[in-house]
Amino acid sequence: MGRKIKQKDLEIKNLGPCKVTSPSLGSTSQNMPHFHFVEDSERVLFDMIYDADQNGLGKNPLNMERAGPRKKIYFDPSKTSAAIVTCGGLCPGINVVIRSLVLALNYRYGVKKILGVRYGYEGFIPDYGHPFIDLDPEVVGNINQFGGTILGSSRGKQNVEEIVDCLERNNINILFTIGGDGTLKGAYAIHEEIEKRGLKISVVGIPKTIDNDINHIEKSFGFETSVTISSPIIRDAHNEAKGAYNGLAIIKLMGRDSGFIAANAVMAMPEVNVVLVPEVEFDLHGKKGLLQFVKDRLEEKHHCVIVVAEGAGQNLFDFDKDVLTDASGNILHEDIGVHLKIKIKQFLVENNIKATIKYIDPSYIIRSAPANPVDSIFCNQLALAAVHAAMAGKTGMVVGQRSDTIVHLPIPLVTAERKKIDVEGDLWLNVLESTGQPISMKN
Amino acid sequence: MGRKIKQKDLEIKNLGPCKVTSPSLGSTSQNMPHFHFVEDSERVLFDMIYDADQNGLGKNPLNMERAGPRKKIYFDPSKTSAAIVTCGGLCPGINVVIRSLVLALNYRYGVKKILGVRYGYEGFIPDYGHPFIDLDPEVVGNINQFGGTILGSSRGKQNVEEIVDCLERNNINILFTIGGDGTLKGAYAIHEEIEKRGLKISVVGIPKTIDNDINHIEKSFGFETSVTISSPIIRDAHNEAKGAYNGLAIIKLMGRDSGFIAANAVMAMPEVNVVLVPEVEFDLHGKKGLLQFVKDRLEEKHHCVIVVAEGAGQNLFDFDKDVLTDASGNILHEDIGVHLKIKIKQFLVENNIKATIKYIDPSYIIRSAPANPVDSIFCNQLALAAVHAAMAGKTGMVVGQRSDTIVHLPIPLVTAERKKIDVEGDLWLNVLESTGQPISMKN
Amino acid sequence: MGRKIKQKDLEIKNLGPCKVTSPSLGSTSQNMPHFHFVEDSERVLFDMIYDADQNGLGKNPLNMERAGPRKKIYFDPSKTSAAIVTCGGLCPGINVVIRSLVLALNYRYGVKKILGVRYGYEGFIPDYGHPFIDLDPEVVGNINQFGGTILGSSRGKQNVEEIVDCLERNNINILFTIGGDGTLKGAYAIHEEIEKRGLKISVVGIPKTIDNDINHIEKSFGFETSVTISSPIIRDAHNEAKGAYNGLAIIKLMGRDSGFIAANAVMAMPEVNVVLVPEVEFDLHGKKGLLQFVKDRLEEKHHCVIVVAEGAGQNLFDFDKDVLTDASGNILHEDIGVHLKIKIKQFLVENNIKATIKYIDPSYIIRSAPANPVDSIFCNQLALAAVHAAMAGKTGMVVGQRSDTIVHLPIPLVTAERKKIDVEGDLWLNVLESTGQPISMKN
Amino acid sequence: MGRKIKQKDLEIKNLGPCKVTSPSLGSTSQNMPHFHFVEDSERVLFDMIYDADQNGLGKNPLNMERAGPRKKIYFDPSKTSAAIVTCGGLCPGINVVIRSLVLALNYRYGVKKILGVRYGYEGFIPDYGHPFIDLDPEVVGNINQFGGTILGSSRGKQNVEEIVDCLERNNINILFTIGGDGTLKGAYAIHEEIEKRGLKISVVGIPKTIDNDINHIEKSFGFETSVTISSPIIRDAHNEAKGAYNGLAIIKLMGRDSGFIAANAVMAMPEVNVVLVPEVEFDLHGKKGLLQFVKDRLEEKHHCVIVVAEGAGQNLFDFDKDVLTDASGNILHEDIGVHLKIKIKQFLVENNIKATIKYIDPSYIIRSAPANPVDSIFCNQLALAAVHAAMAGKTGMVVGQRSDTIVHLPIPLVTAERKKIDVEGDLWLNVLESTGQPISMKN
Repeated sequence: MGRKIKQKDLEIKNLGPCKVTSPSLGSTSQNMPHFHFVEDSERVLFDMIYDADQNGLGKNPLNMERAGPRKKIYFDPSKTSAAIVTCGGLCPGINVVIRSLVLALNYRYGVKKILGVRYGYEGFIPDYGHPFIDLDPEVVGNINQFGGTILGSSRGKQNVEEIVDCLERNNINILFTIGGDGTLKGAYAIHEEIEKRGLKISVVGIPKTIDNDINHIEKSFGFETSVTISSPIIRDAHNEAKGAYNGLAIIKLMGRDSGFIAANAVMAMPEVNVVLVPEVEFDLHGKKGLLQFVKDRLEEKHHCVIVVAEGAGQNLFDFDKDVLTDASGNILHEDIGVHLKIKIKQFLVENNIKATIKYIDPSYIIRSAPANPVDSIFCNQLALAAVHAAMAGKTGMVVGQRSDTIVHLPIPLVTAERKKIDVEGDLWLNVLESTGQPISMKN
Repeated sequence: MGRKIKQKDLEIKNLGPCKVTSPSLGSTSQNMPHFHFVEDSERVLFDMIYDADQNGLGKNPLNMERAGPRKKIYFDPSKTSAAIVTCGGLCPGINVVIRSLVLALNYRYGVKKILGVRYGYEGFIPDYGHPFIDLDPEVVGNINQFGGTILGSSRGKQNVEEIVDCLERNNINILFTIGGDGTLKGAYAIHEEIEKRGLKISVVGIPKTIDNDINHIEKSFGFETSVTISSPIIRDAHNEAKGAYNGLAIIKLMGRDSGFIAANAVMAMPEVNVVLVPEVEFDLHGKKGLLQFVKDRLEEKHHCVIVVAEGAGQNLFDFDKDVLTDASGNILHEDIGVHLKIKIKQFLVENNIKATIKYIDPSYIIRSAPANPVDSIFCNQLALAAVHAAMAGKTGMVVGQRSDTIVHLPIPLVTAERKKIDVEGDLWLNVLESTGQPISMKN
Repeated sequence: MGRKIKQKDLEIKNLGPCKVTSPSLGSTSQNMPHFHFVEDSERVLFDMIYDADQNGLGKNPLNMERAGPRKKIYFDPSKTSAAIVTCGGLCPGINVVIRSLVLALNYRYGVKKILGVRYGYEGFIPDYGHPFIDLDPEVVGNINQFGGTILGSSRGKQNVEEIVDCLERNNINILFTIGGDGTLKGAYAIHEEIEKRGLKISVVGIPKTIDNDINHIEKSFGFETSVTISSPIIRDAHNEAKGAYNGLAIIKLMGRDSGFIAANAVMAMPEVNVVLVPEVEFDLHGKKGLLQFVKDRLEEKHHCVIVVAEGAGQNLFDFDKDVLTDASGNILHEDIGVHLKIKIKQFLVENNIKATIKYIDPSYIIRSAPANPVDSIFCNQLALAAVHAAMAGKTGMVVGQRSDTIVHLPIPLVTAERKKIDVEGDLWLNVLESTGQPISMKN
Repeated sequence: MGRKIKQKDLEIKNLGPCKVTSPSLGSTSQNMPHFHFVEDSERVLFDMIYDADQNGLGKNPLNMERAGPRKKIYFDPSKTSAAIVTCGGLCPGINVVIRSLVLALNYRYGVKKILGVRYGYEGFIPDYGHPFIDLDPEVVGNINQFGGTILGSSRGKQNVEEIVDCLERNNINILFTIGGDGTLKGAYAIHEEIEKRGLKISVVGIPKTIDNDINHIEKSFGFETSVTISSPIIRDAHNEAKGAYNGLAIIKLMGRDSGFIAANAVMAMPEVNVVLVPEVEFDLHGKKGLLQFVKDRLEEKHHCVIVVAEGAGQNLFDFDKDVLTDASGNILHEDIGVHLKIKIKQFLVENNIKATIKYIDPSYIIRSAPANPVDSIFCNQLALAAVHAAMAGKTGMVVGQRSDTIVHLPIPLVTAERKKIDVEGDLWLNVLESTGQPISMKN
């Protein structure tokens, strides 16, 4: 959705021709299965849906490069060193990605020098004085079983030239960046500085966004775990609501610009009466507004469960968006959960309705949890794809899932805008049917 | 601790002599095991620890009535009706207690008329207009698998005479109250009004306090579940702290007057650096204060995890304790978690220490969760003991665990004061050893 | 893989032209979002990967019908009745599918008569005497939170004519069948008998296979939950192996013809040393055989973890495959887990290696568990798609996920053969890299 | 139950007078809380229940030594070395105990030399060649989060003289043994050999029995976790039973000589129809036998859930008990679960009842799991008590919980016989009421 994509937006940059034979498994023996090496000519369609009545599939449908091991690679593993950096907020699965990167580099390719950069992009900047960590299979041991990031993280931009100075100074050939929108933009700036200097350093991102809002990417790691953890919290919040006469539970979930977690969690746990997401504006007051809805619901059923994404209802605040951003450049939202709690309370008091309101914000509990098994598998696949891509000299790109396949996507494509819920599509329709809320709460 | 207890404080009131033969299992057949019926003469020692060097055990050691089925009971089951009311905040296991009460009354004794009182003591008062629910084994089906209370709850006192009017009007013979300190005081007032009117209605409480702070009772239901749920939240909060340079995680847990949940959760999850409980005052400022401790910790280790019980640090606030109470009469505390977050932030800014503070409050998530299996068993045992006691005409009492045994305790004894952590005892010592925090943070 | 698919294999049958306007949400108001109704001309590509070097995408790429609500439907909801039947073994999520079918039929379309067929196809046959259950939103209440199937299930074929007699006799317009390969074949036979009789009854399947082995379908419901539950069991089995000198843990997982659960679980939990699946034959004896591998592993590391899919190693048994089938027609396998345990024990004894072998079979524990939240969402989506398809008069088909989209697929296509792990593809390669086992254990 | 206990059976042996001042926390400062040091004269009553009608409490009631830190200790920490050994089968919490022993020795007392003995008593015997592991806070890091034992374990006796030779040779002052009945008997034999040689080595056991069958001890570590894990398995097995017409689920749980896990799990999960434990013999055949019960149940309800402890129904087998023991000396039982499955199947076939039987054995899954938080706290308390006791020179003893207090008990007392369910007591009565099974299934 949004601007028109052209095929050239989908093309991946390479550091140069691949002349080194991949040491990959299964290449030596004759009677063994011949594992599939992916060629760059292997393409994945960008859209798998088309309308036969309109223009059919079209002559030159958009297509992407498929991820996977290449028969010939760019870097000589014995002379290659890699660095891994994690930026932004926590998200389940970061440690699994780190671990899988290290194992794939070490065991699959024989890359022995792997540096862990501490506390995000800060770790490159001499002034902060954060030393590197040497990463090997022993260091990453069972970190996959724990949430968080063993490297630490930070928000915010750092001087790109200083970062590239650091990469040069330490002879780093490959930089893996695990982070969200801001991190990826930073990674692309690093890539451009590298290109400007004529260096041969590959920059490959593994998109990290608990909100699942990276554009053109179906699912980001940590998202499934987040929905999974949210689900019993919503179920039990329903107990809070039913446990009091005119009980009201408000659960704030993550979702700064996109309400995917809230929308999905609601479908898994059908006790919710309203879900509010950034993509759908709503009024508080007026006949069709939220307050009236809550009042009607309480009068009829005497309890109500509201799930609100953190970025919902920003139209309700008067503030200067240009100013309020966090260190990563994310717009800092007024706390809609607290705001709703206050406004609903006020309104009910004014209407002489005695109610009990419980406000629940499990955000840190969710994002700091370990990845669940299915997410862990996904983290492994992404990390492996990232290592294959980097060893083949691909750069300025991320790995991501599309059509249930891992593909390479250029960073500028995925950072051009945020992915949002299509409010006329199936997901949102299913949500509305699950909650039974009005299609619109705008007057 | 506290005032001196006398044997008469431990004696249980009876509605009258027991003349009805209990329909209990196993009483009819000859070759069957003979299940043990408990006699009132079966006593449980109040203190199982004594000092042989001092006065030894003493001549007439304090002792309590043991819970369990009586051979002769007071009420004729076929003509008995019971009511169940749940008051105060949620706590894991309420539904298990309700279900077990209903099953024991129905299957074990053949009491078929069981009324569920809606929304706490409000449910007795005509003005609120909450109708009763008829409870039977089908209605309570699998409610044991869900948190909350199917009856609903409320806080606050209601007119005792109106409550007893309602009991009379509905021919209720037994009232089970599931609630905390305030609820039990209310139950005792009801009992006194019943006595005054010369009615034969048994009032038996099942103490509900997620804080585990009912006096003279070792463990209340829901407590183990609460510790169990807190534990991974603390583990993952540690990820938040380590995930940032100078990362600080503050987890607020329940514990209005007593810090048992905080203290126990910390022992289960050894990543915590300081735990703050209501029983131990601390200073913020000064050489030995919390702020200096946090600063030192950050400078040395660059991350810090603080667990704080909601009632801790009340000495830091200036407020009039007489005024600020909730509807149950609980003292309403300033939010110590938010207060600490602000104060620490301020202090670190003043000291030019860049830090990232994450504040986590999982209280509603914990109290609304279903009871875990071990807590469920415990709920069953308490409910069964309560039914046995009530059918035997015992009144003005609660059931509770002591010395790993279920006993009967008079309500005035358990509501005389709150149970608190002995700050010179083993539990607190173990906590200090687990966290490594200073013994005192008072200057 | 397998036989060549033609476009006509992908075409869906319709009972007739759709003339009834769908009562779907959002169709009436002007200012509301216009929810997307899917046209039959909306197509999903069958393969989203192609080789630009070979023939490119090809002129007429295979394509499928997209699932979703149709603007015009075939059945008049007010005069429609539906039946739901569940067959074969348990799988997490069956109750979620049942519940979602009922809610979508009732709330979305207004279909009020919904019959639950008891114990699989048996429930249609008068001789068994199983009465129907009336299904409505109240009956399906919170069954989504429980494993199993409230309808009961059975294996085995039943007389197709008797089934269709029953459908006719009860004026059933839509039959939803939830089951695996055998069930779907049965459903297609029912559909053919319906066609033969000229009846207008829609037969729509929701494929249920915990093994995830339905052909051409990316993921079946219950699969993610199964992997999720297997994962900590494997982690802890590793404790059993390490807990003894020369400790060996053998975990048998589901996977009659395809080893997807075993392969995925292994990637989530990297403690496994060998995984054995039906798709890869192996020898026990000889230099490259499993026994030698185990011996070498024990001598080097003194513990070993083996995961084996139930259908693996069938080449090791001498038996007549034609005879040994269960009531569903599934080939009954010798128990490879027990066989391995015995053979390994024997071999180690012969080689004077003292070892401790633990055999773990969690199959029933996994398949009887409730669906996890992400699986629950998926069940909802499949059920909703099935209801949309059936109301539009589509028949002889299943709903399934492909390219992360729900599509309609004709039953004969998905039952033509089983989906298997591509042993030269990425999944298996990742598994081998995770375990480090030899590519082949055939001499 | 069993033989008459005398006060001298409860007395603890000491290596000698305690002259070293304990370095315990809080001893130095004046304004600090004064932590309670336990004196040996502090006694815990052995029985807290007595009959006032009979002899009352008696003149000299049996009493035990209370666990806890002593002001004066026997060993000089700076010159003390300790060893830890784990024996027998896995049990949740072993690693927590190991970790807490190490932390308490190291941080609390300053004992720096701590040896981990590999693979049980084998680790002392030169012929096996298992080297020691040096244990310190870093080595035991987060092992509390994992099941199993990092030391490894083994079953079976080893030569006591060789063990004591090894203790002498390595200057070990304290031996902690974590194990069950056989292990403790072994520990006592070691203690006797030490005494015979006039050595000053303390032997302190932490009883490990997942079956909770150590005599005179209320609860052993790992037991709560086992009940907790069993519970959802039983809930879901009920789905298997209900999922088929005449569905039958048989769940075998641990419990060689005592059925505590089975009895407790059943109370937590009320879907069970029969529970079979070693303490209650039953007949298969005859009018009151199990087979007839199952038949009646199936005919009435069409499903049935049976929980059987592994040691139940041993009267049904003909075998020579003297011969069949495992390496630990435990009597090896015929597999009652498999036996029941076969016998029930046979019987139902003979009676022309078509049924589906599912047999579930989760034993290894349970015992290899990590301890839950409440069990972890308990493990900490036991380990700490064991360290205090050992440092005070106490020997030939175990720590254990009684009357909700940790006490010291002599090994011969706790190994004299196994703790069993009192089949005329409350626990069993509650079980019978939960399942509704006949009091006796003997003809």
